[in-house]
Amino acid sequence: MAAVDADIDRVRLLSDLAELSTIGARPDGGLDRVAWSRADLDGRRWLRERLEAAGLHTTTDAALNVFGTATSSARRRLLIGSHTDSVRAGGRLDGAYGVVAALEVLRTLAAAGDPVAGCVELVDFADEEGVRFPCGYFGSKALAGELDVGSLGPEAIQIIESAGVDIRGIAAVANRMSLAAGMLELHIEQGPRLEAHGLAVGVVEGILGFDRYRVEIEGRSDHGGTTPFGLRKDPVQAAATLIAELPTLVASIDEAGTATVGSIAGDGGAINFVPRKVAFTLEVRQPSETSLTATTRLVESRLKAVCVEHRCSATFRPEHMNVEIKDGLQVAVEPAFVPPILFDARLVEACDAACREVRVKHRRMHAGTWHDAGIIGRHVPAAMLLVPSTNGGTHHPLEDTAETDLVDGARVLLRATRHAVRALELTDY
Amino acid sequence: MAAVDADIDRVRLLSDLAELSTIGARPDGGLDRVAWSRADLDGRRWLRERLEAAGLHTTTDAALNVFGTATSSARRRLLIGSHTDSVRAGGRLDGAYGVVAALEVLRTLAAAGDPVAGCVELVDFADEEGVRFPCGYFGSKALAGELDVGSLGPEAIQIIESAGVDIRGIAAVANRMSLAAGMLELHIEQGPRLEAHGLAVGVVEGILGFDRYRVEIEGRSDHGGTTPFGLRKDPVQAAATLIAELPTLVASIDEAGTATVGSIAGDGGAINFVPRKVAFTLEVRQPSETSLTATTRLVESRLKAVCVEHRCSATFRPEHMNVEIKDGLQVAVEPAFVPPILFDARLVEACDAACREVRVKHRRMHAGTWHDAGIIGRHVPAAMLLVPSTNGGTHHPLEDTAETDLVDGARVLLRATRHAVRALELTDY
Repeated sequence: MAAVDADIDRVRLLSDLAELSTIGARPDGGLDRVAWSRADLDGRRWLRERLEAAGLHTTTDAALNVFGTATSSARRRLLIGSHTDSVRAGGRLDGAYGVVAALEVLRTLAAAGDPVAGCVELVDFADEEGVRFPCGYFGSKALAGELDVGSLGPEAIQIIESAGVDIRGIAAVANRMSLAAGMLELHIEQGPRLEAHGLAVGVVEGILGFDRYRVEIEGRSDHGGTTPFGLRKDPVQAAATLIAELPTLVASIDEAGTATVGSIAGDGGAINFVPRKVAFTLEVRQPSETSLTATTRLVESRLKAVCVEHRCSATFRPEHMNVEIKDGLQVAVEPAFVPPILFDARLVEACDAACREVRVKHRRMHAGTWHDAGIIGRHVPAAMLLVPSTNGGTHHPLEDTAETDLVDGARVLLRATRHAVRALELTDY
Repeated sequence: MAAVDADIDRVRLLSDLAELSTIGARPDGGLDRVAWSRADLDGRRWLRERLEAAGLHTTTDAALNVFGTATSSARRRLLIGSHTDSVRAGGRLDGAYGVVAALEVLRTLAAAGDPVAGCVELVDFADEEGVRFPCGYFGSKALAGELDVGSLGPEAIQIIESAGVDIRGIAAVANRMSLAAGMLELHIEQGPRLEAHGLAVGVVEGILGFDRYRVEIEGRSDHGGTTPFGLRKDPVQAAATLIAELPTLVASIDEAGTATVGSIAGDGGAINFVPRKVAFTLEVRQPSETSLTATTRLVESRLKAVCVEHRCSATFRPEHMNVEIKDGLQVAVEPAFVPPILFDARLVEACDAACREVRVKHRRMHAGTWHDAGIIGRHVPAAMLLVPSTNGGTHHPLEDTAETDLVDGARVLLRATRHAVRALELTDY
């Protein structure tokens, strides 16, 4: 059983990560490995070469998803991996860490002759960040059959074809999904919670869904000197009252939830006049669809009550995340509503058991950002592991995680993979 | 004593007001009688003609202030009046009502042979609205000796000279102030309180002072999904908490006060990110300098506490009201701080006694906007009377007051004038 207890090679993990970081590297330490770009294609070629150098089999589908397996036979396997594309001026860890850790896990399993190796498939999903095509998760959606190929615009088709891909092949990518038995994804947290609580690993039970609104409160533009509070229709007071209550309202439904006012604007035209109207965006996130719906209903009902109290009226309308064009690249257009996903209890327990084996400080939590495992997890069992982000930072060149956390995360992924393969009854032994 | 009991002529009051409203009239029922314009000069000529037609003496000083007296002798008199200039697209009552009512009062006193007539001087102040020169109250400041003639820019001098006035005469206007024994000003409320409480007249004890700030709260732009409330530095939450508390904070010092957030702006750049910074304006008004200072100190101290609570930092800086240019006309530049004025107790009681005599529903209150009587009241005893503004509206063509209120206001002004002249011991009998 010595082989089964084999552990990952810490030095190889970190040196591979460092090597991948040079592809698309920026002078400021960050990355430009935007999906379908030269650097993105180079990164995926580097991965295939590393897989081949380890004697593993590799394939790339029409969506540019890269796969790696220990054996060439077609069989149902547990997907482990993430993505190697980055946002513009991104960091070296978002996605890439999960792919390199999966490479290290697969190599370790294969080299040790662990039968689990044959039940595992590395995946490097294409265009997770949504920098090129709206909504992101291009590769995982293509695999999951969620991508509407017919809706790809001429610009998307041109980008895909300029990367050397036959556009007609994209639809066939989903054929491979029948071989996906589940997915484990290791990722950086992209938030401050693990660091704040001194934890090494987060075991992800699910990803928060979100519901986005544009709130407009209309009152009356009264003079600030002649109109006492009680006779005003002050939309700023109404908005402030509601916004100040948001933490309490969200926590009354589920403390795992959040609410964010991303922008607020109101202007009476002069310092001495109440604005007639105030508008703000509101994003609510909760771990279950029930709690998400209950929270937005509670907030909307408080909005109405606050407006009655302040003699104002309000509208509460679903709001897409706006398109942004930066340096000619389109940043993700996100929908107004995405339901939460609750991960598979067996795979979450596999991750938990792995943390106990490695004896890292860990806790169960919900991820606050979306990932490929969230897409794949809508169709087959999935779970995720998170490692701390230094200062909670992400999507910028200073994105970082301590080396010990990077190593511990990969060690946990190895053990979680073994547990998950058994839990999904993928092994023959 | 029958003569002393003479009352104003209701029909003459309303017809004079209607006639003055035709000068600078707009098709929408409003007025364009901007200071120093043709219409403004025509309005002042109309007033002089009405005074002369009534056998009264009239003079105009270099600031374009128009005066009217029953006798030509130089003696200390109680000023009664207001201003006939308007904002652009203003209403027919702001200022003009107080001048026409004073005309009616002086005519009534003179015709009745009331010895009070000799102790009263009608005044129609120039450029109260500040549409032409920064800060407004040009005429009353010139009389009060508060106008720094040397600071008038070339544009102001050109405007004054094009109105046919010798600029060198402006400084001498203040010489006349020694003859001003006090001032009573009747004005529309420009707010909703009298109407809301079913009152006919407000007896003004003073004018609220104001203190204006620009508040900037700086936090951190965290992702709305990965960052729970407790780990955010959310300037929107900090701002909302403070703003929602403003009514309570102000009332804890003096319920006569107000606080206004005239504009607020914060933008995280995306619906799912907390803004790094939120900025808003804050205007505090209170009836005494003590309560004004105490309120701004309390708000600033709560701002600091709220920022500690939300892990943000803040700046709290005095803010002038911005200049605005509309149709080539400059709207008043107001300072960040103007201390309140407390009116003379004897003249306030004179107004109260007059209300009791006329048996109108009235109450003591503080004016929320500034007036010429506030400028003159810094130097000699003063008080004001307010009549209701329909829907609280002012500075637009729909500005209105019920005819019965206009008549009652003038009747109260007549009696208040008699009481005030006695209270100031201006009569010889």
